[in-house]
Amino acid sequence: ELLLLLNDYHASELAILFESISLESQKKIINLLPVEMASDIISEMSYEAHPEELLFDLEPEKRQEIVEELDYDDATDIISQMDADDQQEILEEMDKEDAINIRNLLTYAEDTAGGLMNTEVIKVGAEMSKKQAIDEIILQSEDIEEFYTIYVVDKADVLQGIVSLKDVIKAKANATVADIVNTNFVYVKASTDQEEVADLISQYNLTSIPVVDVNMKLLGRVTFDDVIDVMEEENTEDILKFSGVSEDEELSGNWVEAVKSRLPWLILNLGTAFLASSVIRYFEPTVTKVVVLAGYMTIIAGMGGNAATQALAVTIRRITLNDLSDNQAYRTVVKELTVGLINGAVNGLIVFLFAFLYDDNLLLGLVIFIAMTGNLLIAGITGAAIPLILKRVGIDPAVASSIIITTFTDVFGFLLLLGLATKLLL
Amino acid sequence: ELLLLLNDYHASELAILFESISLESQKKIINLLPVEMASDIISEMSYEAHPEELLFDLEPEKRQEIVEELDYDDATDIISQMDADDQQEILEEMDKEDAINIRNLLTYAEDTAGGLMNTEVIKVGAEMSKKQAIDEIILQSEDIEEFYTIYVVDKADVLQGIVSLKDVIKAKANATVADIVNTNFVYVKASTDQEEVADLISQYNLTSIPVVDVNMKLLGRVTFDDVIDVMEEENTEDILKFSGVSEDEELSGNWVEAVKSRLPWLILNLGTAFLASSVIRYFEPTVTKVVVLAGYMTIIAGMGGNAATQALAVTIRRITLNDLSDNQAYRTVVKELTVGLINGAVNGLIVFLFAFLYDDNLLLGLVIFIAMTGNLLIAGITGAAIPLILKRVGIDPAVASSIIITTFTDVFGFLLLLGLATKLLL
Ligand SMILES: [Mg+2]
Ligand SMILES: [Mg+2]
Ligand SMILES: [Mg+2]
Ligand SMILES: [Mg+2]
Ligand SMILES: [Mg+2]
Ligand SMILES: [Mg+2]
Ligand SMILES: [Mg+2]
Ligand SMILES: [Mg+2]
Ligand SMILES: [Mg+2]
Ligand SMILES: [Mg+2]
Ligand SMILES: [Mg+2]
Ligand SMILES: [Mg+2]
Ligand SMILES: [Mg+2]
Repeated sequence: ELLLLLNDYHASELAILFESISLESQKKIINLLPVEMASDIISEMSYEAHPEELLFDLEPEKRQEIVEELDYDDATDIISQMDADDQQEILEEMDKEDAINIRNLLTYAEDTAGGLMNTEVIKVGAEMSKKQAIDEIILQSEDIEEFYTIYVVDKADVLQGIVSLKDVIKAKANATVADIVNTNFVYVKASTDQEEVADLISQYNLTSIPVVDVNMKLLGRVTFDDVIDVMEEENTEDILKFSGVSEDEELSGNWVEAVKSRLPWLILNLGTAFLASSVIRYFEPTVTKVVVLAGYMTIIAGMGGNAATQALAVTIRRITLNDLSDNQAYRTVVKELTVGLINGAVNGLIVFLFAFLYDDNLLLGLVIFIAMTGNLLIAGITGAAIPLILKRVGIDPAVASSIIITTFTDVFGFLLLLGLATKLLL
Repeated sequence: ELLLLLNDYHASELAILFESISLESQKKIINLLPVEMASDIISEMSYEAHPEELLFDLEPEKRQEIVEELDYDDATDIISQMDADDQQEILEEMDKEDAINIRNLLTYAEDTAGGLMNTEVIKVGAEMSKKQAIDEIILQSEDIEEFYTIYVVDKADVLQGIVSLKDVIKAKANATVADIVNTNFVYVKASTDQEEVADLISQYNLTSIPVVDVNMKLLGRVTFDDVIDVMEEENTEDILKFSGVSEDEELSGNWVEAVKSRLPWLILNLGTAFLASSVIRYFEPTVTKVVVLAGYMTIIAGMGGNAATQALAVTIRRITLNDLSDNQAYRTVVKELTVGLINGAVNGLIVFLFAFLYDDNLLLGLVIFIAMTGNLLIAGITGAAIPLILKRVGIDPAVASSIIITTFTDVFGFLLLLGLATKLLL
């Protein structure tokens, strides 16, 4: 009766359930289920739930059945996460042709079109009649559960165009594929980065995009559902990098992985924090004489960090969605400079009033006003300029994490506040 | 010849070009183009490029032609951005039936399934034969450029199931739609939040999802390409909120909008910075006596802020992708506590060595070691616990921006460092 119960669920629902139960329970359920359902669940499991461990742990016969039922792209993704000898063991027990296909897919980098593509596509010839094409499509679609686009190729599998099933159905009875083929189509090379694949699918609203080699030979296709997963993954990476976390940290990983991923960033930042602290040390005589500066220091530095984080977030996100021309980049920096100046002056005025009214010190108020305005101005410029410069020299702008940039405003804020105080207040 | 040149481009390419040229140039190009191409470009323009201004600025006849060519969902999106009286003017010059449809779509909130859906769908009856169904699909698909799923409805438009075009083609000649209909399908209500729509499309790998009213009457469908746009928009909002920027700030907006969006956050943070600063003021006598503490203060507070940002980013992203059970939430807080303890101890040891070797003060080193470890421990707990608590009380966890949480670690870091120093060093 468990089987009956499980049958009411979609594979993706069971895959989510699998993330919170033990490997033993996962195995028990997989062994109960028909092979098609079992392979659907394994292909839907998040990589953080480690489907490769579950798969490898099954009885060899069950394992083989499931691997052969998986789509090639999903099988490749899962097998690629195993050790070399586990990979070897699985590939050897598989059907020869399937193993060749998967070994081939394993050669493409994970984050390229080749690494995302599925090799099972529906292909027709330009010379086919409507009737021949429909028969061919029905025949080939036995193995392919979902298909959105039909590829038109020549004898050597060179891609010549695309047709939709709708166009075939609507064609006149005496038409050939050549009459309805669309030869103005978007495609990618196997080496194209997955982010570019995602951008193309998104820009052209495609359900799938063909992947070709240098001779335009059709290798496979990437479908929109895999691109949606890529987008989620890339967005996770961006938010982690922005916050000084290694992009490879698994969100559900344990504390050992988290320490490994975050400690290097913290130690790097400790180095830059010593830099900021050395500015304070340099001005120690000033702080001793005007000890109330100690309290203002943290306000000026903290506000600079926040303003820089704001400018950085807006600029990085803009670069991610759409690269900026030199002219747009210039205008972005000018805009952030203006925003920093205004926000600095407003916040500076508030702190000035506090220093004037509470500490009863007009000159101190003036020093703080200038330091706040200057620091937020610099915060705006660096928050916008640093990611734009990184992008132009070919470094991922997201590594200009908020952690790095706030240290910069710490140093500058302390310099400005304590330098001015030394000149004007002593 | 300009027309010939423009014809080589896809509407989405011209839409991107439009973002960097003046409204006058946009109008000139639109007036040159055939109405289908013009409406495609306008529907592909990003909302930040303000297609509603371009559309409203065209000659009334041109404008009417284009609006009637637009899909209802796109027309609604664009018209919804206009003032009430501009909306009125456009709707009055339109075809009656189109205007009724758009007025109806305008009643749904922008960020719900109703606000995203297109009302043009292909519908067949369960009683139809294969031949009737194909004829009906070909007939209805005249108006619909792309369709991925065919909906099976009864006489009152109540949704009974779905079929794919492939299933219809592959059906036996004497089959009816009832023989091939899939009655176990995923759907949403018009009021369903767009993020839930995106999650369902992503989880079930759907090209489109039907939208129904409370009586299961079919209202329309949301397609995967609109969901990809929603995902990009939601990710932009999350990264902005995380960084203390109002989620509504347009990335390409001018400085006036940016000041309006960011100044309130900065002023809020200035209030909390005064709180941190009041801790330092309270301990002013200690800082005066041990002035070297001023330099260490910024290190302890800064590192606490960074560690909290790391824990916060991982936890918020995890909540966004997948809600956590109480047990998972508990384990996340314990994990972040452990990570904070270890990272705190390692960084504390480095600073201890510096204080011992450079400042030649063992007791000072000890105070700093304890303050660093304690502050990073608290940073881990709050970075994980605050978004989890916000989620449970129904507040978007992304408002627990890194700006707010780093102030918390500032206050705690100063309290710990200066409190300990007062006890142990004086
Ligand atoms: Mg792969
Ligand atoms: Mg990448
Ligand atoms: Mg799109
Ligand atoms: Mg796939
Ligand atoms: Mg990336
Ligand atoms: Mg990656
Ligand atoms: Mg800070
Ligand atoms: Mg809408
Ligand atoms: Mg929302
Ligand atoms: Mg999916
Ligand atoms: Mg649409
Ligand atoms: Mg959101
Ligand atoms: Mg919104």
